[in-house]
Amino acid sequence: MNRKRVGIVGAGQLGRMLALAGYPLGIECRVLDTAAEAPGAQVAPAVLGRLDDARALAELASQVDVVTLEIENVAVAPLEALLERTTVYPPPRAVAAAQDRLAEKTLFRSLEIPTTQFVVVDGEKDLGVAARELGWPLVLKTRRMGYDGRGQRVVSSEAELAAAWRELGGVPSIAEQWVRFVREVSLIAVRGANDERAFYPLAENVHRDGILARTVAPYVDASLQAHAERWLGALLSALDYRGVLTVEFFQTERGLLANEMAPRVHNSGHWTIEGAETSQFENHLRAVLGWPLGSTRARGHAAMLNLLGQLPPIEAVLAIPGAHFHDYGKSPRPGRKVGHCTLVDGDRERLLERLRAVERLVGL
Amino acid sequence: MNRKRVGIVGAGQLGRMLALAGYPLGIECRVLDTAAEAPGAQVAPAVLGRLDDARALAELASQVDVVTLEIENVAVAPLEALLERTTVYPPPRAVAAAQDRLAEKTLFRSLEIPTTQFVVVDGEKDLGVAARELGWPLVLKTRRMGYDGRGQRVVSSEAELAAAWRELGGVPSIAEQWVRFVREVSLIAVRGANDERAFYPLAENVHRDGILARTVAPYVDASLQAHAERWLGALLSALDYRGVLTVEFFQTERGLLANEMAPRVHNSGHWTIEGAETSQFENHLRAVLGWPLGSTRARGHAAMLNLLGQLPPIEAVLAIPGAHFHDYGKSPRPGRKVGHCTLVDGDRERLLERLRAVERLVGL
Repeated sequence: MNRKRVGIVGAGQLGRMLALAGYPLGIECRVLDTAAEAPGAQVAPAVLGRLDDARALAELASQVDVVTLEIENVAVAPLEALLERTTVYPPPRAVAAAQDRLAEKTLFRSLEIPTTQFVVVDGEKDLGVAARELGWPLVLKTRRMGYDGRGQRVVSSEAELAAAWRELGGVPSIAEQWVRFVREVSLIAVRGANDERAFYPLAENVHRDGILARTVAPYVDASLQAHAERWLGALLSALDYRGVLTVEFFQTERGLLANEMAPRVHNSGHWTIEGAETSQFENHLRAVLGWPLGSTRARGHAAMLNLLGQLPPIEAVLAIPGAHFHDYGKSPRPGRKVGHCTLVDGDRERLLERLRAVERLVGL
Repeated sequence: MNRKRVGIVGAGQLGRMLALAGYPLGIECRVLDTAAEAPGAQVAPAVLGRLDDARALAELASQVDVVTLEIENVAVAPLEALLERTTVYPPPRAVAAAQDRLAEKTLFRSLEIPTTQFVVVDGEKDLGVAARELGWPLVLKTRRMGYDGRGQRVVSSEAELAAAWRELGGVPSIAEQWVRFVREVSLIAVRGANDERAFYPLAENVHRDGILARTVAPYVDASLQAHAERWLGALLSALDYRGVLTVEFFQTERGLLANEMAPRVHNSGHWTIEGAETSQFENHLRAVLGWPLGSTRARGHAAMLNLLGQLPPIEAVLAIPGAHFHDYGKSPRPGRKVGHCTLVDGDRERLLERLRAVERLVGL
C-alpha cells in the first residue's frame, strides 16, 4: 500500500486535529509553522518556516502528495507558485476570495447568495457615504486579516466611525450594515473528487467578544438547511473547490445572510469529531486526496464549548457524562483558544443542561 | 495545567491507538519497543529497548507519571521491580496471572468463574491422565506465550497428543476439554480510581485459524451480560485492578465458560473507537491516571473486521457507507494484523450486509 502524505500550511489546533485524523487512515501529515512547539508540530513532523516563505513551502511540498491549509490569512502568491510543483487544495483563488472581505462579498453577490449590505471604504472620503447609505449602527471591518473579531468595530456615530477608521489603521475596509439577527448558524460543506459533495447539518453558534464561544448541532430547519446547501453548493462549483468549506450566516427574520466564509475546517465543526459519523477533519483529508467522503450525519445532539485562556481541571470536565476533552497543547494566555469540550447526547434538553454544567466549570 | 505522561510497554497497534487516544486529552504517551518503526513509535516518542530490560523500563518510567502495557507476554519481575520507582497499572500480578494459563484458570476457579475442564501437563507422564479425564478431542496449550492461536493444538488421539506435546516444545502445558460452543463472546471491563467500574456491552467474536477475524457488538443478552459483569467484577476486585481488562468466553448451551483474560485493551474492543461513546483506549488512559471513566454505551451497532496480511485499497473500503479505516502503519506480511475496519449503523441487518461487502473486498 502506497501511504499518502498531506502537507498542512499552519500548525495550530486545526492542523493538529487534521494530523490526528490522518493517522488511522494511514495518512502522514507534515505541518509548516514558525514554531516547533505549535499544536500541530507536537503530533506531526514539521517544516519550520514562515507560511509565506517560498522555500519553506517548496520543502513542505517536496515531502507530500498534496498541500492544504488550516488558515486562510496566508499570502496567496507563494501558494499559487506552488501549483507548478504540486497539488494545492483548496485552490489558492478560493483562499484569496476568503481573505478579502470585498472579494468575498462580491463573490457572494455574483452567486446570488444573500449577504449584508455594505459600502467599500478605501479612504476617509468614503466614511460619509457609508454613514448615509447604511445608517447606525454600522460595522467597519478591514478587508484583510479579520478573524475572531479582530479588525472590526461597531460604531454608532460619525465621530466613532472616524475614530474606528484610525484605530483600524486606515487600511482598505468595508462598512457593513449592522444586522439584527435571531441567531448565528454555520454550514460546513465538503467537496471531493468527481464533484462528490457532502453537507453537515447546520450548527448554531454563539460568539462572545467576537470569538466563537459555543456551538450546538444539529440546528434543525429543513428550509434553512436547503437554502444554505444550495448557496454553498454554488460556491463549491464556482471555486472548483476541494476540501472543507465553511460559511457563517446570520439568521434574520427574513432568512439567512452570509457573513463570511472560511476555506478550511472550522471551529464551528469541532463537534463533528464525536457528534457526526465522520469528522470534518477526516472528510477534509479524504477530499483533498480524492477519496470517497464519509457520512456527515449527526449522532444525536452535540454541543461544543471553546476553552479560552486556560484549561479547566480535566478531571472535573470528564466527570460530566458525555463530555469529551480536547487539549491543543498550548500554554495559557488570556483569550487564547487552548482547547474545547464536546458533549454528545441523544436528548437535546439534557445536552444543554450538561453544557451549562461545563460552562459553570469554566466560570461562564 | 500539569499535563500527564503515560509510558506504554510495547508499541504495536494497541500502543499506537492508546497514544492517539491520549493526544486530545493532553496526555503524551511514551512507548517502549525494540523497533523504531513500530506502529506506536510512529505516533509517539519511543524508548528503544527490550520490554524486559530493566534499564529500558527505568528510562521509560523516568519520563512518565504511570507505566502501563499493551502486551501481557512480558517478564513480570522487571515490572515488579519498577514498582519501587513508579506506578504500574495494571498491577504486575494481574499480568502474571494472565500470562500463565494455569495461574489464570486457578484464579477463575477461586472466584467461581466457570471455565473449561483442564488437566495440568508438566511432562509426558501427564498426557495419559489428560486423555482419560478429558476425552477426545482435547486442546493442548502451552502455559505461556499463547496468543492468536499460537502454542496450542487440537488433538483427537493419543498419538496426536504425544506429537503435539513434542511440537509445542515439551514445555509446561495444560490440556483442556474441547468445548462445543454456540459462539464466542468477550467482555471488556475497566476499573479506575476509587473502585469506579464500567463494562462495555458483550461483543460477539469470530476467529479464523486462532486469530480474531471479526467482532460484532453489542451482543445483546441481559442475562449473559449480567453474569459476565459479575465475573469480571470479581476479577477486578481480586486483582485490585486498574485499567482495561478483557475476558473471552465460550458461550455453550449451559452458559458462558471463561476461556482467557487479557490485562489490556483488546482486539475485540476496537469497535469502541467509533461504536461506543468512549473508546476502550481513552478509558484505559483515564483509568490508569485515576480520571473519571467515560460512558461505555454503544452507539447503535458496530462491526470490526481485522485486516490481515495486507491492506485492501482504502478508497474501496471508504466507499462503503459507515466504514472507518484503521491502518497500523505496518508493512505487509502473511497473517499479520495490519489494520482493521469498523462499520457503524443503527440497523443490525444493514450493518451485516455492509460487513459482507468489506469481507468480499478483502477476499473473505
